[in-house]
Amino acid sequence: MQQAAQHQQQLTKPAGSLGRLEEIAVRLAGIQGTPLPHIQQKSVIVMAGDHGVTREGVSAYPAEVTPQMVLNFLAGGAAINALARQAQAEVVIVDIGVAAPLTHPQLISRKVAPGSANMAEGPALTREQLFEAFQVGFEVLDVTVEKGCDLIAIGEMGIGNTTAASAISATLLRLPVDTLTGHGTGISAEQRQHKVRVLERALELNQPDPNDALDVLAKVGGLEIAGLTGVIIAAAARRIPVLIDGFISSSAALAACALNPAIRNYLFAGHTSVEPGHRLILEYLQLQPLLNLNMRLGEGTGAVLAMHILEAALHTHNEMATFAQAGVSEKEEG
Amino acid sequence: MQQAAQHQQQLTKPAGSLGRLEEIAVRLAGIQGTPLPHIQQKSVIVMAGDHGVTREGVSAYPAEVTPQMVLNFLAGGAAINALARQAQAEVVIVDIGVAAPLTHPQLISRKVAPGSANMAEGPALTREQLFEAFQVGFEVLDVTVEKGCDLIAIGEMGIGNTTAASAISATLLRLPVDTLTGHGTGISAEQRQHKVRVLERALELNQPDPNDALDVLAKVGGLEIAGLTGVIIAAAARRIPVLIDGFISSSAALAACALNPAIRNYLFAGHTSVEPGHRLILEYLQLQPLLNLNMRLGEGTGAVLAMHILEAALHTHNEMATFAQAGVSEKEEG
Repeated sequence: MQQAAQHQQQLTKPAGSLGRLEEIAVRLAGIQGTPLPHIQQKSVIVMAGDHGVTREGVSAYPAEVTPQMVLNFLAGGAAINALARQAQAEVVIVDIGVAAPLTHPQLISRKVAPGSANMAEGPALTREQLFEAFQVGFEVLDVTVEKGCDLIAIGEMGIGNTTAASAISATLLRLPVDTLTGHGTGISAEQRQHKVRVLERALELNQPDPNDALDVLAKVGGLEIAGLTGVIIAAAARRIPVLIDGFISSSAALAACALNPAIRNYLFAGHTSVEPGHRLILEYLQLQPLLNLNMRLGEGTGAVLAMHILEAALHTHNEMATFAQAGVSEKEEG
Repeated sequence: MQQAAQHQQQLTKPAGSLGRLEEIAVRLAGIQGTPLPHIQQKSVIVMAGDHGVTREGVSAYPAEVTPQMVLNFLAGGAAINALARQAQAEVVIVDIGVAAPLTHPQLISRKVAPGSANMAEGPALTREQLFEAFQVGFEVLDVTVEKGCDLIAIGEMGIGNTTAASAISATLLRLPVDTLTGHGTGISAEQRQHKVRVLERALELNQPDPNDALDVLAKVGGLEIAGLTGVIIAAAARRIPVLIDGFISSSAALAACALNPAIRNYLFAGHTSVEPGHRLILEYLQLQPLLNLNMRLGEGTGAVLAMHILEAALHTHNEMATFAQAGVSEKEEG
């Protein structure tokens, strides 16, 4: 990282004038352990799962939308497909817990269960299901990296999963659910109040231990969130940078960092979404979002869009001439 | 625009969940006059000129850096080259007023004068020089568009040009120069105070008329700023969207909008830089920056980086399936 920082000082621009692009290049140098880091191949891993808590009426969309959108991803018609084509990133779709049966040649079918249980009535996952979901994340990451991928974005699909993300982050950040809970994909103020009451009931009933991220993920998490936690843990272990997306994937990052704080060094926050809990997680993890475009879709869209910024940092870092090479005068001492 | 907005409502995502990408797509639809706008070919027009006011010691870099950096652009070694390669944008370099003689097969040599006069001693440009600089902007834009370009970014190079940008924007925004003046490419607090005094002297001496943007551009502007004003005027006339960059290119946009307020509808603000005057111009023009990465380099770097965001807006707008096409259920009425 020090060599990379010195290299930045010699490029033909006033020191610091590329702002966060310079910081990103130096961070990527640290992650890859080389002064001139490169990104060759990019993937977005999208995990899909259903949530028993949707039976409490916490979402604006019916639960059938989860499998419908998975098929839309596989047909290439969703926002994440359009943005991944632009960014030249592979889209990896994993069914880790969709309630409906799904088959498709491009779908990675690793269904741990047909959705989580209703956290308003008991724990969302068993400890065994949680570990199996982690394992799916480890394996999907390993296969993706073995194929040559060196930058991962994460995304998710699961009607009801902002409710799980609120429960996880309220517990781990030790904040009242009311401060973290937003309007999800578009519920009214009254529906939001109902969602807050369901969350309060689920936390009261399950009593997840804020000092034990495994307990939190099992009791009030979800299969796609646990799977993404596994992806993040495995990526950090292999020194692969991970772009996190919105509130839900950030709750997976929060859980991963609670298990091992060093994982934070491998994370980049793609953007900040409209969900209030998202900003609180990023502040806690001290991750500054790269984009702020009022997006709140999930699927990995904000993370994939931010790939252009990470690549811009490397294009300038690796391709610019130095003052000496270009014969440009340096700053006069003032 | 209305058709484009209706199209957005039918795409497989919660309404509004792509945030500013949706607004951008609708604005581009309005500019191009089609519900499904496209960007085929992108260019960044970089105008370079010198400033007589550098003799007052307002910059951290010697004036020789202007021609040195122009040669660096032409050799492909500057930040704008790296970012334009990534964005697949053509780099068009125009010598509109560099003091030193410059020749290069790729350089568009349209030198109106070997730099502006020192605004601290009299008007920076004559009225004839100003109109000639506009004409250069018109012609460069026309040639670029004739070659097929349908998205323009603007950039500049000129040691001393934050001083000219401060003078223009202080006058047109009717604000004290002290509130608009930053540290340019890296001067100290003391040097900044000196820059403010030089600016106050130049404005006192020249008395530019805030109701007459032509008077302002001539008396306290510069050749590259006037040239970019010409580019913006000509682009808006041809319904070509323009991505503006930092403080200097935004001062050209401010002048263009003072001449014709409708031009604002063709502008996108690529980013917000560290220069305080930049934010004030964007607020006045009601342009919300697409990126905020603490960049302050100029050259068009922030504008070219923001091209990815504009293209993302169109990829999602044009490629996503509708609810009907994908068989996805719409939102339940709450």
